[in-house]
Amino acid sequence: MSKVYVNGAYSTKFGELWERDLRSLAVEAAVEAVKDSGLTMKDIDSIVVGNMLASRFAGQDHVGALIASELGISVPASHSEAACASGGTAFRQGWMEILSGQAENVLVVGVEKMNDIGTDEVTTGLSGASDEEWEASVGVTFPSLYAMIAREHMRKYKTTSKDLSLIALKNHMHGSMNPKAQFPKEITLDMAQSAIMVADPLNLMDCSPITDGASAIVLSNKKKKKSIEVLSVAQAQDTLALHDREDITTIGSTVKAANKAFEMAKVQREEIGLIELHDCFTIAELVALEDLGFAKKGEGVKLVRNGDTYYDAKLPVNTSGGLKACGHPVGATGIKQIVEVYDQMNERVGARQVKDLKYALTHNVGGSGATAVVSIFKNLNNA
Amino acid sequence: MSKVYVNGAYSTKFGELWERDLRSLAVEAAVEAVKDSGLTMKDIDSIVVGNMLASRFAGQDHVGALIASELGISVPASHSEAACASGGTAFRQGWMEILSGQAENVLVVGVEKMNDIGTDEVTTGLSGASDEEWEASVGVTFPSLYAMIAREHMRKYKTTSKDLSLIALKNHMHGSMNPKAQFPKEITLDMAQSAIMVADPLNLMDCSPITDGASAIVLSNKKKKKSIEVLSVAQAQDTLALHDREDITTIGSTVKAANKAFEMAKVQREEIGLIELHDCFTIAELVALEDLGFAKKGEGVKLVRNGDTYYDAKLPVNTSGGLKACGHPVGATGIKQIVEVYDQMNERVGARQVKDLKYALTHNVGGSGATAVVSIFKNLNNA
Repeated sequence: MSKVYVNGAYSTKFGELWERDLRSLAVEAAVEAVKDSGLTMKDIDSIVVGNMLASRFAGQDHVGALIASELGISVPASHSEAACASGGTAFRQGWMEILSGQAENVLVVGVEKMNDIGTDEVTTGLSGASDEEWEASVGVTFPSLYAMIAREHMRKYKTTSKDLSLIALKNHMHGSMNPKAQFPKEITLDMAQSAIMVADPLNLMDCSPITDGASAIVLSNKKKKKSIEVLSVAQAQDTLALHDREDITTIGSTVKAANKAFEMAKVQREEIGLIELHDCFTIAELVALEDLGFAKKGEGVKLVRNGDTYYDAKLPVNTSGGLKACGHPVGATGIKQIVEVYDQMNERVGARQVKDLKYALTHNVGGSGATAVVSIFKNLNNA
Repeated sequence: MSKVYVNGAYSTKFGELWERDLRSLAVEAAVEAVKDSGLTMKDIDSIVVGNMLASRFAGQDHVGALIASELGISVPASHSEAACASGGTAFRQGWMEILSGQAENVLVVGVEKMNDIGTDEVTTGLSGASDEEWEASVGVTFPSLYAMIAREHMRKYKTTSKDLSLIALKNHMHGSMNPKAQFPKEITLDMAQSAIMVADPLNLMDCSPITDGASAIVLSNKKKKKSIEVLSVAQAQDTLALHDREDITTIGSTVKAANKAFEMAKVQREEIGLIELHDCFTIAELVALEDLGFAKKGEGVKLVRNGDTYYDAKLPVNTSGGLKACGHPVGATGIKQIVEVYDQMNERVGARQVKDLKYALTHNVGGSGATAVVSIFKNLNNA
């Protein structure tokens, strides 16, 4: 089996980008990632685009063809959609294009444009990630789904609202060092605890913001100077509807994908020096730390309370600022996580630099966990 | 490189299925295709779903997760979208899952539910396959895009409206022998020529009908009794907007994908005994015959006028009835074409059986040709 490397990476600014459209964001990310890889657009054999909602928000389907057309190339261009895991599934397809021998250099682009339409419409659009007939159609929204998960986690494991606020605090502290972040500023515990309620017990500071942005990476079968190696990519599913699960404090797809990713990579959890995980809500970061196997179920709060997940502590989590502070353009998020890993391993992130980074893990989730993609990367300079 | 086989195939009835929803159609096709392959759902390592418009028409994104959840399995489930080529790109991903060593048995499902909403909304939804900012937003619809192609083809090559009607006649004659077809009945030349105009020169009988339906196939790396072999799958792109092309009587993605598919398969055009091609409009069948290399540009009409493309003639085209008579549930179409090839090669299609079939080709198009997927299959009994 041939090896797969990330050889270039780039993210646009995330935020309310009123003067930009979907295609200009995707093109900026694509062109800059290809430039970063040292290749030219002619070297690209295949394109995979991760995007969830251009169909509903912009009336534009066929976004793989759109991006290829804008870039002026005619290589196979695909569109992968798995709600907020669209970046992750696009990455997995790009990885398989190389493993299957169908491509040597693959451009993977994640993009979403979410600020151009009304808040109600965005909420309705995002609810398409849930089970429409059993959840969305009766009024369930994503804050309410994750609020149910939080309530049950609090009941079973004595997790508190303050624990969740500590996660927001940490991610905003990280985000304050990331100029690409939507909200590059710190918050205080008082601000986090007194924010307006969205879906009890989740308040505004427990929720990641939707936004505009694009991220792109170049995957290759050839090692170059800045290469990092993709050791594993594992995807798994859980039930689409939350009510079909035995225990809603655990996300089965994350557990299964993580176990498979570690097995494939032949790496131990203790070796991971950076995690970029899917904190669409603060509770999601806590649940993910446990489901990924970095804490026993119910004990993830210890890492949070100890401050272990800060960029300069023993298990850095979401140094980009996470979905919470960096922002969550849903199709881009899974690729942005890989951009952060690449930039960290190439020691070009400035103040938030993680020291002596050998292995990193990314974790991208669709909906309330029906899809999870977990990947492990190796720093070829340090590992 | 490991070989890839189609080991099971099934299509639901295509038509106005008022009492069925998206998930029940997908599940019927999936369950029956797996049964046909001799496997059980537990043997499936991966699922890829082709679908274009569930997001807009049913408020349901994340359809890969939906179908896996409905089938009760947690293997990687992806959603591939490329407008009307969504089935084709899903098939290509499934093929790469096997080639990359990530799966031994892949279930590929194409599904679309289009009759539940208003005609205007369907037309608007389908226009998402074009360039929204440059085409759809100014009122361009798909009949009008293909009407422009037809007008120019008529101007350059003296193609007539009657030539187009002959294509509809042939596809309806084939469809009359396919009980799964939406319109399993013959039409007369007079009916075809006197149908109401949709977008001059294309009348109602030049347009394929949108519809409800699902098709599924099982891909495997192991040869079984009913196996047919996938010799090649090739995808290419053309510009998204029609006005960016030098010559609108040719679709560059089809030309490029066909050349690559023949090269990869090491098969000559003369060896092809069945073509299932993308006749979203009658003119599209004519243009495709030329772009696929079965006639020189402008000379495809000879095949049509000679009756060479009937199921019992020298180059059978669209024995399923094509999109015209079998119906066009857009995400399912690319898979339905492969179901037809599989059923033909296993000699289980009844009256429309092609004799001594050795090699077959499928051709699935997205939009006005921004995406094309061309695949070649081998009959392991006859070839």
